[in-house]
This record gives sequence, structure tokens and C-alpha cells, in this order.
Amino acid sequence: MGLFTKDIESMDDLFVHQLKDIYYAEKRIVGALPEMIQKASAPQLKQAFESHLAETRNHVKRVEQVFQMHGATPESVDCPAIDGILEEAQEVAGEVADKQVMDAALIAAAQAVEHYEMTRYGTLIAWAKTLGRDDCANVLKANLSEEEAADKKLTQIAESGVNQKAA
Amino acid sequence: MGLFTKDIESMDDLFVHQLKDIYYAEKRIVGALPEMIQKASAPQLKQAFESHLAETRNHVKRVEQVFQMHGATPESVDCPAIDGILEEAQEVAGEVADKQVMDAALIAAAQAVEHYEMTRYGTLIAWAKTLGRDDCANVLKANLSEEEAADKKLTQIAESGVNQKAA
Repeated sequence: MGLFTKDIESMDDLFVHQLKDIYYAEKRIVGALPEMIQKASAPQLKQAFESHLAETRNHVKRVEQVFQMHGATPESVDCPAIDGILEEAQEVAGEVADKQVMDAALIAAAQAVEHYEMTRYGTLIAWAKTLGRDDCANVLKANLSEEEAADKKLTQIAESGVNQKAA
Repeated sequence: MGLFTKDIESMDDLFVHQLKDIYYAEKRIVGALPEMIQKASAPQLKQAFESHLAETRNHVKRVEQVFQMHGATPESVDCPAIDGILEEAQEVAGEVADKQVMDAALIAAAQAVEHYEMTRYGTLIAWAKTLGRDDCANVLKANLSEEEAADKKLTQIAESGVNQKAA
């Protein structure tokens, strides 16, 4: 993006910019999940992260598909938001000694990531519809549904006893 | 937090750490909203931001109340997540020329902030309950309800025509 120019002139530009942002975020999450899997202790949490890693690799492909449907080249823009969310997750994890407290911290970190993605996909779907691109909206909805399901699953795991064991 | 020590030993420590994180975030949002109010064009968006600024000032007070109920001193820890979300909002806003596209971008930025707060309050409420502190959970729920309502209001404003006008 230019330092002295205003590069976002239309809703179409804004949509593509946001797509580049979530593309960067999804790829960062693919890179971050293996460490979270390694740090998790509860088997159901490890498994949830593993299955979400497979889903996330697929989200990257779906975002590439939307770029192509929209006639744009898949590329990333820096996304300080996801960088900050992941940096904070690492900082907190670095402070935790106890395994069960670590699981609670990992769930919280992963839910912050999910909520970031949910808000971005919600926005992208609304903008795709505004632009008359229900076809793009439908592909993005597939990602949103999986993020929502991953978030619910993490709440279930927390409520199923991970937090209780840590307390 | 210590560089070479693990300062979070218990769920109680983790809860207080997260409270310090949302305390920092709420205060950053109080600082960021006036610029968003100034940049917004649609009167209903300006008004939504203004009324959320008043609510956010009250959220800071409720978080201070929870610190006190829990016997902890209200203090902040750096929160790279909210810093990143707000930095990204500023970067995007700096790229937008058109007023109506700006409104759409501001709604998206504000919803990313709301979702961050929703996930943090959701976690804090779950942890407060785990620690047997339903009294703290209830105060935190008051903030969560207002964040959820603010997020819904922004969706309504977007759907009521702000996005359509921008397209």
C-alpha cells in the first residue's frame, strides 16, 4: 500500500484488502498451531488443535479460491491484528508453568484467534453480498462455519473439566 | 512479568493476568473511539460510537470493581492483541478516500474490537466461575452483554444501508 496515496477507493478494493488480510492470518495460524498442539496436555485439546490445523490448511485454499473467483491474485497484506493476538498467546504461554493452567491459557488464546477470524469472515460475507457476489459469500461461509464450530468445541473442552482440573 | 521466571502458577494468577489485559484494552478503546467518531459520516454510526464510548468508560470502572472484589490492585499489562487490532484499523482507515467506504471500514474495525472483547470476557467469566467467584462473573457479564449489543448494533447499521451506499 502506498504511503502517500489512498489505495482503497471502492468497496471492491476494501473487500480485496480484507481478503489479503485473512489470507495472511490463515497462513500465520497454520504456522502457529503445531506449537499449540505440542504445548497442549489434555488429549481432547491436542486432538481439537490437530483437526483444526487440517481445517485451517483448507481455509487457505478456500480463500485462494475466492481471490480467483473475484479475478484477483492471491496475496497477503500484513495483519498486525493476528500478529498481536499470536504474540500475546506466546507471551502468556511463556509465563505458565503448570500443565493444566497451560491448557486453560491455550484454549483462551485459540478462542481469541477464532473470534478474530469470525469477525473478519462475517464482514467479508456481508461485503461480498453487497457487491452482488453471493458465490464468493458461500465459499467464505464454509470457513466461517468451521471457525464457529472450532470455537464451540473449545468452550465444550473448557467446560468438560480442563478449567476445573487447573483450579 | 519476569523474563526468566514463570509468573503464572495458578488459575487465579491466570485470571488476574487476563483481567489486566482487558483493563489495558478497555482503556486503549476509550482513547481510540474519539477518532472513530470523528471519521464516521453516517449519523447513526457516529451516534453508535458515541454511546459505546460512554459504555466503555463504564466498562473500565466495572473491571476496576472486579480487581477490588478479587483483592487485587487494578493495573494493566501490555496487550499486543488490542494494539494490533487498533493499528490495523488505523492503517486501513489511512488508505480509504471515500466517506462511505470509510464507514464500512470503520464498522469492520469496530466489530473486530468487539469480538476481541467478547472472547476475553467469555474466558474471564468461565474462569471466575471455575474459581467459585460467581460475583465477579456477574459484573463481567454486564460488560459482555454491552459488547454483544454493540456488535449487533453495528451489524444492523451495516445492513441498514451503509454498505449498500458504499458499493
